[in-house]
Amino acid sequence: MAALGPIEYQDASPEVRAVYDDIMATRKTGSINNFWKALAHDPVTLRRTWQSIKEIMAEGTLDRVTKEMIYLAVSITNQCNYCIASHTAAARKAGMSNAMFAELMAVVGMANETNSLASGYQVEVDEQFKV
Amino acid sequence: MAALGPIEYQDASPEVRAVYDDIMATRKTGSINNFWKALAHDPVTLRRTWQSIKEIMAEGTLDRVTKEMIYLAVSITNQCNYCIASHTAAARKAGMSNAMFAELMAVVGMANETNSLASGYQVEVDEQFKV
Amino acid sequence: MAALGPIEYQDASPEVRAVYDDIMATRKTGSINNFWKALAHDPVTLRRTWQSIKEIMAEGTLDRVTKEMIYLAVSITNQCNYCIASHTAAARKAGMSNAMFAELMAVVGMANETNSLASGYQVEVDEQFKV
Amino acid sequence: MAALGPIEYQDASPEVRAVYDDIMATRKTGSINNFWKALAHDPVTLRRTWQSIKEIMAEGTLDRVTKEMIYLAVSITNQCNYCIASHTAAARKAGMSNAMFAELMAVVGMANETNSLASGYQVEVDEQFKV
Amino acid sequence: MAALGPIEYQDASPEVRAVYDDIMATRKTGSINNFWKALAHDPVTLRRTWQSIKEIMAEGTLDRVTKEMIYLAVSITNQCNYCIASHTAAARKAGMSNAMFAELMAVVGMANETNSLASGYQVEVDEQFKV
Amino acid sequence: MAALGPIEYQDASPEVRAVYDDIMATRKTGSINNFWKALAHDPVTLRRTWQSIKEIMAEGTLDRVTKEMIYLAVSITNQCNYCIASHTAAARKAGMSNAMFAELMAVVGMANETNSLASGYQVEVDEQFKV
Repeated sequence: MAALGPIEYQDASPEVRAVYDDIMATRKTGSINNFWKALAHDPVTLRRTWQSIKEIMAEGTLDRVTKEMIYLAVSITNQCNYCIASHTAAARKAGMSNAMFAELMAVVGMANETNSLASGYQVEVDEQFKV
Repeated sequence: MAALGPIEYQDASPEVRAVYDDIMATRKTGSINNFWKALAHDPVTLRRTWQSIKEIMAEGTLDRVTKEMIYLAVSITNQCNYCIASHTAAARKAGMSNAMFAELMAVVGMANETNSLASGYQVEVDEQFKV
Repeated sequence: MAALGPIEYQDASPEVRAVYDDIMATRKTGSINNFWKALAHDPVTLRRTWQSIKEIMAEGTLDRVTKEMIYLAVSITNQCNYCIASHTAAARKAGMSNAMFAELMAVVGMANETNSLASGYQVEVDEQFKV
Repeated sequence: MAALGPIEYQDASPEVRAVYDDIMATRKTGSINNFWKALAHDPVTLRRTWQSIKEIMAEGTLDRVTKEMIYLAVSITNQCNYCIASHTAAARKAGMSNAMFAELMAVVGMANETNSLASGYQVEVDEQFKV
Repeated sequence: MAALGPIEYQDASPEVRAVYDDIMATRKTGSINNFWKALAHDPVTLRRTWQSIKEIMAEGTLDRVTKEMIYLAVSITNQCNYCIASHTAAARKAGMSNAMFAELMAVVGMANETNSLASGYQVEVDEQFKV
Repeated sequence: MAALGPIEYQDASPEVRAVYDDIMATRKTGSINNFWKALAHDPVTLRRTWQSIKEIMAEGTLDRVTKEMIYLAVSITNQCNYCIASHTAAARKAGMSNAMFAELMAVVGMANETNSLASGYQVEVDEQFKV
């Protein structure tokens, strides 16, 4: 077997349980996603990743649903199947409607298309966009 | 020389000029970006790409700045330098503040990190996320 | 059916069998991975790819486990599921412990994050790093 | 300085010169591209890469220009600026006209767009396409 | 459930049915792929994407099989599993033989390898390739 | 101008200076790379990213040079020019010789090649590698 299996709450160390507890409290849910159960094999990475995500994805100048849609746009571009599934769900929970998802997808598709057109045509950066 | 140079307005065919005119009218600007001047070597692709972008990037359920930020998130993930430069400018024009940009970047960075963590740990899609 | 199925040893041509034999002898194993059984549809590519991998992955200035971890880092970044599964197994066989895997993953995640931060902030290459 | 500079013919070892000579003879040219002059820092990789490319890019069932266009499509998708510049030139030398380039670019753009649409909509593989 | 299910013909709106009908007529087939059934959740994107693909993938200066092979090369590089499965089938239908597929794969593999060699060795673009 | 310029030490807030000081002390250097000077526009991201990198890149089960080579392998695969330049320098500083770099590059190139071969041939994950 190549991969490490998920670590369930009852089998977790106190250090890992503390992170699981904070995830469930912050997200107002009684379950832990497989992503965290996998990272639990490395409690240091589990803690750091959760702390970073908690800080970054909190309501800020950008609201929760906008942040989740940006997260999803990146995951789609990277073809990360797990991330697409979990962040589509997260974006919906944060308020993304079917209409918003449809517009997000149209923009993501167009951006991926024009990214390749710009590189293939070797377009020079316009003077006014230069750093 | 490997690439095709930009086609300026004065050298453009009537078909290309019509697209240039629509771009400048829609965007309320007097200049054309190098991207369009490169695509002008293929008037069919120029027209189709502009029509698609015009339709997709118009105010909809998502507002203009949200769409531009999603566009930028994709371009950053793809490491498309031209697109990053031009869509950072477009997002700013549509209202992206420094604070919004900073939050966008934090989300894009985190998404790229966790995309690789999810794939490397070979995380199974949770039952509740399955299609 | 879109893909070509695996070619088993008993069904393989002498040319393909010779490569299979060398793989099993070099790797001290009695089985052939699906990757090689798929490439066997093109004996020229099978031979060339195996010869290249055999040459490249041999103990050198870098030891076997370091090479396998680098291979894995690339495969994770590319979201290649087959390669992640097979090279995680190969890295473990070459001596990668759970602790080494955890550190590898932390570095891969951080690199993917900062790669997008560097591009999104359009960071200029420092003078001292210039070619 | 982070990168290794190019190794010119007059400074090259006999082993490297032998590869340079074969490149110039095969390609009917009197100059060596910077790509090979960089790889020359590792004569083993230089030789193996050149042998592989010579074998793969030779006229076969697919003609030279088709192969160069496929090479270019990959390079554009990967946003590899050096490769885009050099393989656009190589494809033109092999016979790619402006009209062929325009059609190539339209296909590459569309493929990159629909790749992200397929992943974002989490489309299931149709039964008839299953391996 | 994270993703939207496929919309079958009998459940589709007249607008969507019109696109389905045109797809089946153009492709001379009685069935619709899951890709279109997913896009049908956004009839505007369905129509625009189909119109673009119909225009781009039609016989032109490049023939149908060359275009499908370029499409496949991009999809492989992006690791888009759905697209690889469906466009391998499409390329075969357009005339790609096993020998052509084998040569395509060799070129795609080599391009991905040298793309990373060129970036890792930080190769400068040759003067004669400069825009 | 699309991007934010670098924030120099003398223009930095006390919060940013504290991070700069820690970077210079940890790395035993008197200068700050452009990457950090760009992130300084968002002191929260600057601090979090530096803390994470400091923790992750410290000598652990894997030594410093191995970690830097893994970082470089990811950056090359992502075609992130800034990251390639800066982490090649960092890897050299940590002890990467020309011979180690050459072997690293050979592995990175081969991994990128076989990643695309595995996806293009639609290779099924071997039973023994399944999670």
